[in-house]
Amino acid sequence: MNQLEPNNQINTRKNRRRFLKKSAFFTAGLTTSVLASLAGTVPAQTDDNLYIIGEKKGYSPKIGTLLSMMTMMREWVIEVVKGLSIEQLDFQIDDQSNSIGAMLMHLAATERYYQLNTFDEMEWGTWGEEIKKEWDVASGLGEEARMQIKGNDIDYYLSALEKVRSVTKKEFAKRDDEWIMKSEPFFDGQLTNNYCKWFHVCEHESNHSGQMKFIFKRLPK
Amino acid sequence: MNQLEPNNQINTRKNRRRFLKKSAFFTAGLTTSVLASLAGTVPAQTDDNLYIIGEKKGYSPKIGTLLSMMTMMREWVIEVVKGLSIEQLDFQIDDQSNSIGAMLMHLAATERYYQLNTFDEMEWGTWGEEIKKEWDVASGLGEEARMQIKGNDIDYYLSALEKVRSVTKKEFAKRDDEWIMKSEPFFDGQLTNNYCKWFHVCEHESNHSGQMKFIFKRLPK
Repeated sequence: MNQLEPNNQINTRKNRRRFLKKSAFFTAGLTTSVLASLAGTVPAQTDDNLYIIGEKKGYSPKIGTLLSMMTMMREWVIEVVKGLSIEQLDFQIDDQSNSIGAMLMHLAATERYYQLNTFDEMEWGTWGEEIKKEWDVASGLGEEARMQIKGNDIDYYLSALEKVRSVTKKEFAKRDDEWIMKSEPFFDGQLTNNYCKWFHVCEHESNHSGQMKFIFKRLPK
Repeated sequence: MNQLEPNNQINTRKNRRRFLKKSAFFTAGLTTSVLASLAGTVPAQTDDNLYIIGEKKGYSPKIGTLLSMMTMMREWVIEVVKGLSIEQLDFQIDDQSNSIGAMLMHLAATERYYQLNTFDEMEWGTWGEEIKKEWDVASGLGEEARMQIKGNDIDYYLSALEKVRSVTKKEFAKRDDEWIMKSEPFFDGQLTNNYCKWFHVCEHESNHSGQMKFIFKRLPK
């Protein structure tokens, strides 16, 4: 599951569908590139083509670009975990490890907290008890998460992720490029802009995806 | 080493230096934000402040933005590994694992190959034997990398990474936003633009950084 090579993300069913679509394009003699160049524009990311990073309809240029990265990243995380059973999602590789399920919930919690910090402009950790009760365990991982986050199937995690993401998209759509460049002291106490915070939310998914793949390779047969 | 909280990247020496600088700013009553707003502009990433994602002097807007992410990401990778001994860099957590050293070399190899693919417009894997001899083992990881990539100190890896990155920066500086949006069939055989390929180079560092942190926590005392 090395992400180096261009064809690493191959997934048979999805690819077959994509291949058929692409074949139709080529048969017609019109690739998306050609169409785009005829229109004097460049192709944009669609639900069926994740691999164009750039502006997205309905969002300001910088926010759309960031969202295109977040969308691609999320799809790659889902590719790693989507076929896992409850037992596999709960698997602990050692007594200090986080299960894949707990890490998925952790991604949702992280995104939720960055929403509160950047959309609601709340200082980190100052959110109410109800929110903390919902998300602190997943956010913190470790012992508590090992005890509490288990027994859920993959749909449970994917729908938690999707529910949080839908809020992010709705809020992103309301904001502009000036907002994404706004900064306050944050990482290391240094000025950190919203673009950086949300880029972190994105790369943080890759960080845990690396760990999920490490565990995936070692799941009991 | 959870990257969720704002102060997670605390490193005592560097932070002390940064804190002193910031205190001086506040003492003078002029934060960078205020200065920036007086100048009618937004702060940009500098060597001393990684956390402003956005345009960078000397690069086209989109390329500069991407490079600001790559620079932040690389710094976070270095934070994880910079104090490690040769034994720690070589440590194998099990017989199918990659050492932290091998993964660092793998990041350099990945970036080198994406240079050839995007700057030299070579089809993936069509580079000459000499280049393959230099990078294929690190690129492929696994058994060969376990045998061949070991016994090096941290400076060896960091300078390999830096040497490759300096080429990326030089080539980025020559190019424009039209180039970064150029696409060809690549991931999943789908249209993939240069922005996507280089975003992958960036998130791929986070992916392996997650694995490095997993191993770091389990290094023998």
